[in-house]
Amino acid sequence: APRVVQVIREAELVIGYRLYLAQIQDLLSDKQIHASELTHEKERARLAVQSARAGRKVCIVSSGDAGIYGMAGLVLDIFSEMSSSSDQRAEPYVEVVPGISALNAAAALLGAPLMHDFAVVSLSDLLTPWPTIAQRISAVAEADFVVVLYNPSSRRRQWQLGEAQRLLLEHRAGTTPAGLVRNAYREGQKVRLTTLEHLLEHEVDMFTTVVIGNAGTRVRLGRMITPRGYEP
Amino acid sequence: APRVVQVIREAELVIGYRLYLAQIQDLLSDKQIHASELTHEKERARLAVQSARAGRKVCIVSSGDAGIYGMAGLVLDIFSEMSSSSDQRAEPYVEVVPGISALNAAAALLGAPLMHDFAVVSLSDLLTPWPTIAQRISAVAEADFVVVLYNPSSRRRQWQLGEAQRLLLEHRAGTTPAGLVRNAYREGQKVRLTTLEHLLEHEVDMFTTVVIGNAGTRVRLGRMITPRGYEP
Repeated sequence: APRVVQVIREAELVIGYRLYLAQIQDLLSDKQIHASELTHEKERARLAVQSARAGRKVCIVSSGDAGIYGMAGLVLDIFSEMSSSSDQRAEPYVEVVPGISALNAAAALLGAPLMHDFAVVSLSDLLTPWPTIAQRISAVAEADFVVVLYNPSSRRRQWQLGEAQRLLLEHRAGTTPAGLVRNAYREGQKVRLTTLEHLLEHEVDMFTTVVIGNAGTRVRLGRMITPRGYEP
Repeated sequence: APRVVQVIREAELVIGYRLYLAQIQDLLSDKQIHASELTHEKERARLAVQSARAGRKVCIVSSGDAGIYGMAGLVLDIFSEMSSSSDQRAEPYVEVVPGISALNAAAALLGAPLMHDFAVVSLSDLLTPWPTIAQRISAVAEADFVVVLYNPSSRRRQWQLGEAQRLLLEHRAGTTPAGLVRNAYREGQKVRLTTLEHLLEHEVDMFTTVVIGNAGTRVRLGRMITPRGYEP
């Protein structure tokens, strides 16, 4: 998006995960760069805040939308923790630039599954206990939300998607359309349409977003479409 | 976004709501244009499908993200209704281009409220009966989702936001942070932080998006922040 490019161009220091910075290297030729590994989010956020408070123009790069399960919250949290003064005006200005999250990208590639109310749930139980996640899935399954699942599976987390499927099947037909999008708008993009009952027959990893339709969702000409309203 | 500009440049015919087309008129100088009023969505979608099936390159413009309560579903629906043949290969190719929806834009301007599971609910009861909407709000309020409300109010729909507030207050504290964003990234942009109990003291209209925090959401240095996880 244009604002993202502008912010990167104006920055002196650009901080990010190594592989994301590699994707925008043509914008970075005259910049100072701090590239780190995937798990070092807190280190990146701390460095960004320290550098900004030292008077530098800093840009921290996040994939997708930094505001949806992204880096924005961590940066703002660490920023407020490190802020000694209660005088906001003395602090550097932080701008969050919106982007295309996995939900926007997956929906576009599947057709139009998000034409009506939807809920977004991360299946990662590293920071959230599974019973909380399970309760949320049951609540939105019963209330007939379209459901978008982030972080459905990883090398260490294998059973969560099957459990989510089981909870959804308590309230929704097995024939409900479901979509799987891997690496949206990146190399290796894969878009698959299936149904809730066949969900586990496809490869799903941490780069995959899963969209489960509501009771009205249907497939037409190879696209997943949710109607805009409900007949009374 | 770059792909949007590319698609508009390649189109022969550009169709859209009059005021949205006016915002991109510098891209439209050599195009055939069909501008219509806000309520004529079906007419626009039908014209787009007819023209594409007649062999023309058509772009239909939607504000925000066409895939989130936008034009994508209607276009695909009418496309499949008008498709006489079951042979998909004979039909023109339809591409949905993702964009920045009100949820992406409002979250960025408020801080980082969407760092954890959230639900999106439209308060428009023109096509969906209110009991369905009310049941959904109660379900996601109880399961502690951050809640994003689209279409909170209009000239003809005045009581729905108050009723949504009442349902949310059955499960969530009055002091829960809430954000109101009007005309995000447009002329007349207004960003306000308030609380669930004071929600109705501010002007809310059809250009406003409302974000209600979950039990963990807090305000720091003037920003609305939801923590990434839940302590077990």
